[in-house]
Amino acid sequence: MTRKELIEQIRLKKSYLCVGLDTDITKIPRHLLSSPEPVFEFNKRIIDATKDYCVSYKINTAFYEALGLVGWEAMERTVDYIPSTHFTIADAKRGDIGNTSSQYAKAFFETLNFDAITVAPYMGADSVRPFLEYQDKWTILLGLTSNSGAADFELQQAGEGLLYEKVLTTAAQWGTPDNLMYVVGATQSDWFTNIRKLTPDHFYLVPGVGAQGGSLKEISEKAMNNDVGILINASRAIIYASDKEDFAEKASEVAKEYQAEMATYLK
Amino acid sequence: MTRKELIEQIRLKKSYLCVGLDTDITKIPRHLLSSPEPVFEFNKRIIDATKDYCVSYKINTAFYEALGLVGWEAMERTVDYIPSTHFTIADAKRGDIGNTSSQYAKAFFETLNFDAITVAPYMGADSVRPFLEYQDKWTILLGLTSNSGAADFELQQAGEGLLYEKVLTTAAQWGTPDNLMYVVGATQSDWFTNIRKLTPDHFYLVPGVGAQGGSLKEISEKAMNNDVGILINASRAIIYASDKEDFAEKASEVAKEYQAEMATYLK
Repeated sequence: MTRKELIEQIRLKKSYLCVGLDTDITKIPRHLLSSPEPVFEFNKRIIDATKDYCVSYKINTAFYEALGLVGWEAMERTVDYIPSTHFTIADAKRGDIGNTSSQYAKAFFETLNFDAITVAPYMGADSVRPFLEYQDKWTILLGLTSNSGAADFELQQAGEGLLYEKVLTTAAQWGTPDNLMYVVGATQSDWFTNIRKLTPDHFYLVPGVGAQGGSLKEISEKAMNNDVGILINASRAIIYASDKEDFAEKASEVAKEYQAEMATYLK
Repeated sequence: MTRKELIEQIRLKKSYLCVGLDTDITKIPRHLLSSPEPVFEFNKRIIDATKDYCVSYKINTAFYEALGLVGWEAMERTVDYIPSTHFTIADAKRGDIGNTSSQYAKAFFETLNFDAITVAPYMGADSVRPFLEYQDKWTILLGLTSNSGAADFELQQAGEGLLYEKVLTTAAQWGTPDNLMYVVGATQSDWFTNIRKLTPDHFYLVPGVGAQGGSLKEISEKAMNNDVGILINASRAIIYASDKEDFAEKASEVAKEYQAEMATYLK
C-alpha cells in the first residue's frame, strides 16, 4: 500500500485506528476453543466486527509463534483474510545482518503478504535496508517505545541528543516518508512535540493507547501532521472488550468509539 | 543446559564450535530438492556429519520463516533432531514489551525446546527479563555485532562509553553468567580485550569467523577466559563447503579443521 492510498483510507473512514491482533489463546472466549482453528476464528470475527472503524491491523507475531506451527498457520490465514483496503503490519521487531534481514523481508513481504513490518534499529543501516528495498512496502523502525525499559537505552544520552533521537534522524537518511515509519510509544505524550520537529513528514505507529495508559486526545494533538501522520494502535482494549459470546459486538463498539473520537481530531 | 554442562562438553570435545544452520533452500545441493523435506534432510545430514566436532548448533530463524509453514516445520524437526549433548541456539533476535517477550520466550523455550535465544537490547530491561526467567535456559544479548551497521549506533558514544559497552554492563545486572551470554562479532577482534575486561565471566557467542572474515586465532587469544567463555559460530564456511553430493563429507572436514585448531588454543 502506498502512502497516498493509506491517507485516502484514513480520510474516507475518518479513522487512524490500527487494531492489534495480539491474539492469546488463553484469553479468547472459551466457546471458541472447540472450533478447529480458534485463533483464526477469533481474528476473523474481530476483523468482521471492526473493519469499518479502522484502517489497519497489526499482527503481533509473538503470540502466533508461541503456538508453533498451528500459530504460524493462523497468522497466514489471518493476513490473507484482512481486506486489501487495510494496511497490514507484522509486529515482528526483526533485524539482523544484511543477508539475514533479506530473509526476514522475504518472509513478511513475500511469503506472507504484509504491507509493513516493525524492525529493531540496534544493528544499524545494513540490518534495515533490505526491508526498505521492497516497492510499496513499509519499514516501521522502533524509535521511542512505551515500556519502562525505554529508559535503559532509548532515553540515554548518545552524542548530542538521546539515543532514540539519533535513531530517528539517522534512519531518516536510509528511507523516505514513503517507505519508513517509526514506532513512537504513547505513554510519553510530552515527547511528541520534539519528535515531530525531528521527523516532520513521517508516519508514526503509536502503541500504548488504552491498556497501556496513553491519551488519544493528547497524542493526536501533539503528533498529527498535515497528512495525519499517525496510526494509533489499540489491542487489548478492543479485542478483549468482552470474554463472552458477545466479544465481537463489544470489540466493534469500542473500535467505533475510537473512530468517533478520532473523527473529531482530524484536521 | 547449564553452564557446567556446556563447559564439560567443550572440554570433552576440545571444541567451542557452533555450527550455524542458516539453511537457504536456494543454496543446498540440488539433488536434495526432490526429498519431501529438503531443508530438514540437509540439516540432518549436516548434523550427523559435524556433531563430533562441535558443541552447539545455531538455527537462524529468518531462513526458515522465509519459507512459511514448511520452514517453521523444518525448524521444529531440526531442533528435535539435534542431540541433547549439544547447546541449541535460536538465532532469532527477538525483543518486545514484557508481555510480548514472554510469548517469544514461550515460543522458543517451550514450544520449541531451544537452550538459548538471541535477543535485541534496544527496548531495555523488561524486554529481556522474560527470557531470563526460564531455568537452565539462556539469553544471548546483542552486544557488538559483526556487520558494518554496528558503526551507526553500537559504536556511538553513549554517556561515558560506547553504546555496546553500556549494553554489556547494564544487562550484566539483569542476568548472571549462568543465564546470560552476549553476541560479540569477530570482525572486531581488537575490541575483545576491552570487552573481556567489562564482562570477565560471561560467555560470548562469536559470529563472523570464516565467510565474514574474523580470525579464529586472534579471537581465541583475546576473548577466552578460564571457563573458555566463547562459542565461535561458523555457518556458510561449513554448511556450504560443497554444493554437490559430498556436501556432508566436506562440512565434516571443515568442522574437523576448526575443532583441531580450537584444541590447540584451549588452556
